[in-house]
Amino acid sequence: MKRPLIVQKFGGTSVGSVERIENVAEHVIRAKYSGKQVVVVVSAMSGETNRLMALAKQVDKVPNARELDVLLSAGEQVSMALLAMTLDRMGHKAVSLTGAQAGIKTNRIHNDATISDIDTQAIEHYLQQDQIVIVAGFQGINDLGDITTLGRGGSDTTAVTLAGALKAEECQIFTDVDGVYSCDPRVVSNAKRIAQIDYPTMEEMARKGAKVLHLPCVQYARNNRVPVRVVSSFTEGSGTLVCGESVCTGLTGIAIQKDLVAIGVAAAQVESVDKQCKMLGIESYWLTQANQNELLIKAEHSDKLKLVIEDKITQEQQVGLLTLVGTKAREQVSHYQQLLKFSDISVLHFFEDEHSISLVLTPSTIDRAANLLHDGHIINDGALSREEKQVYLG
Amino acid sequence: MKRPLIVQKFGGTSVGSVERIENVAEHVIRAKYSGKQVVVVVSAMSGETNRLMALAKQVDKVPNARELDVLLSAGEQVSMALLAMTLDRMGHKAVSLTGAQAGIKTNRIHNDATISDIDTQAIEHYLQQDQIVIVAGFQGINDLGDITTLGRGGSDTTAVTLAGALKAEECQIFTDVDGVYSCDPRVVSNAKRIAQIDYPTMEEMARKGAKVLHLPCVQYARNNRVPVRVVSSFTEGSGTLVCGESVCTGLTGIAIQKDLVAIGVAAAQVESVDKQCKMLGIESYWLTQANQNELLIKAEHSDKLKLVIEDKITQEQQVGLLTLVGTKAREQVSHYQQLLKFSDISVLHFFEDEHSISLVLTPSTIDRAANLLHDGHIINDGALSREEKQVYLG
Repeated sequence: MKRPLIVQKFGGTSVGSVERIENVAEHVIRAKYSGKQVVVVVSAMSGETNRLMALAKQVDKVPNARELDVLLSAGEQVSMALLAMTLDRMGHKAVSLTGAQAGIKTNRIHNDATISDIDTQAIEHYLQQDQIVIVAGFQGINDLGDITTLGRGGSDTTAVTLAGALKAEECQIFTDVDGVYSCDPRVVSNAKRIAQIDYPTMEEMARKGAKVLHLPCVQYARNNRVPVRVVSSFTEGSGTLVCGESVCTGLTGIAIQKDLVAIGVAAAQVESVDKQCKMLGIESYWLTQANQNELLIKAEHSDKLKLVIEDKITQEQQVGLLTLVGTKAREQVSHYQQLLKFSDISVLHFFEDEHSISLVLTPSTIDRAANLLHDGHIINDGALSREEKQVYLG
Repeated sequence: MKRPLIVQKFGGTSVGSVERIENVAEHVIRAKYSGKQVVVVVSAMSGETNRLMALAKQVDKVPNARELDVLLSAGEQVSMALLAMTLDRMGHKAVSLTGAQAGIKTNRIHNDATISDIDTQAIEHYLQQDQIVIVAGFQGINDLGDITTLGRGGSDTTAVTLAGALKAEECQIFTDVDGVYSCDPRVVSNAKRIAQIDYPTMEEMARKGAKVLHLPCVQYARNNRVPVRVVSSFTEGSGTLVCGESVCTGLTGIAIQKDLVAIGVAAAQVESVDKQCKMLGIESYWLTQANQNELLIKAEHSDKLKLVIEDKITQEQQVGLLTLVGTKAREQVSHYQQLLKFSDISVLHFFEDEHSISLVLTPSTIDRAANLLHDGHIINDGALSREEKQVYLG
């Protein structure tokens, strides 16, 4: 059972200055005035994590992992205290809690910890006193009592996990964009905000490169049925609501990833290379076409992998991935290929997943392909008004 | 029983940059190489506390006290992590602990908490692993689980209290001066470093205005028999060792305080004003001469006191206090008065304490009086060599 409680998460840009923190306080107070209990998760002020990281790098190129967590976690401590002071000045009782104080337990992996459990006792104590509770994002404590920090998108994970543990009716992710778009608006200027999206589709978008929500965050929300709303800190609007299991029909969006490498491997080596990827925790796709076996991985992982499979590599190529997400995607693959062919964009490979078709392209053609396919095919019932639908119907 | 363990405390200037933290690490490693266990207490990097305080003041002129402690305590978290990383890079196992992690329990008074107890379990755990333990100065945790910060000189208090709890053989306060001087060297250029000083004399020096060690710190050290050494972070030398109960003979030093106010009060009001001072926690001296009753307090407290005794004040005057500390002081009071009279410096009042004589002077004459009395009378067996003694014998 959900309860009338909202978790709101504000990223580094949203708390980037004392003025912006006032703006955050107004969002928080609005939620409180609507009669809900409010738990707020904050990141470090933008620039602060970089400043602290630069100090650490001045000391040591590879700083001690435990101590890096001690250092970086000071960042959220500053923003959460400033937000609590601001709310207090505005006449609202608020209390800030570090990850440890908020009972956010993690495993022992420093710099990339996973939340194992949340002991909500302290938070519930303050909620019962009708206080606004502010929790440091991105950090927790392990069973040794050491401070840990979560991996990428850590504050989102804190927020969604807290929302799950507290049975919040909604987890609101405030950010600098006003929702999830049908494609990255910096690439496709016609991209439209999606008003509502189901978990499986959002999960596939995130897995294939949409950056607004991190994959583990979506997966946690889905598994724990936490409705997540992506909304802008700076403009009014209802953003994008992520919830529900029934996959919406049609094409929802296009996810793109530009920083991939396709590594050719001899057929006899596929099994051992696959094993090594898994051991190193590197996400990979196998592209098999005729006698060619190519491994698709993120460019940032290629150096690490090449250290162990150097001798097994037959060729290597930088590529991009364009993924059309939606139930309709698989029906239309030949149509996509045709459209791209007419525009002299060659598809190197393609592969299917349950609700998507992914096209492997040369990186330089990605943006053009995204615009062509988006404007030719995207149909989204949630995002587009009746008039827009007519324009965008493929 | 003492054990072979040294507590070293480094102030904000000593950890003011990554380069200076390297210098701190060298002091720590030297102590470790001498075969001792080492516990290090650090302040925030110089400037950091001011930066954080400025952010808080931007939010609210009187920021919420609990949240100010959350904010400020982030400062030490940065310096302690950087020191641990530096030691780690230099090949020494080190671990940093926040006040809460180090088991430093305080009362509930935010921004001016007092240590009530230290649970040394975590520190002992890491010491058993032969690690250097770095503890955040100036901070602790109260029985509600809230972060607190100590009052003025907080990191010194953390260090001395830890040294007491851990039965350290010495608590070393590293600072930007190389010891306790016979008078403030910025006032008396002939002032000499005192090699060793007993607790009662140091306590009297601190009570009467010597700033190198705060009074509560000296009192704690005395009550718990913690030998304290004041030593420079930046120059070699054995500094000043504070230990022992037997008061050294002669004159040890001159303490000066320039920021005092003498408030005249009618005889009938003395008792009620005295009561109000105690209620407000304002330290005060009564100066009684003929029919005049004057109250001596720090100028910084005068506004607060005047709010409640406004109508009882007959006169008010800014004054300074010069205190000669040492067993010989009380014998020589007429001599001092004579010396000052010859130099046209009038003594407004004087009063005795167990090991000192305090002279109330007009603020503008304090520096000249200090130089005259210092060069004419200071004898310190610890600080001065045989030749120096002959020069300084009064």
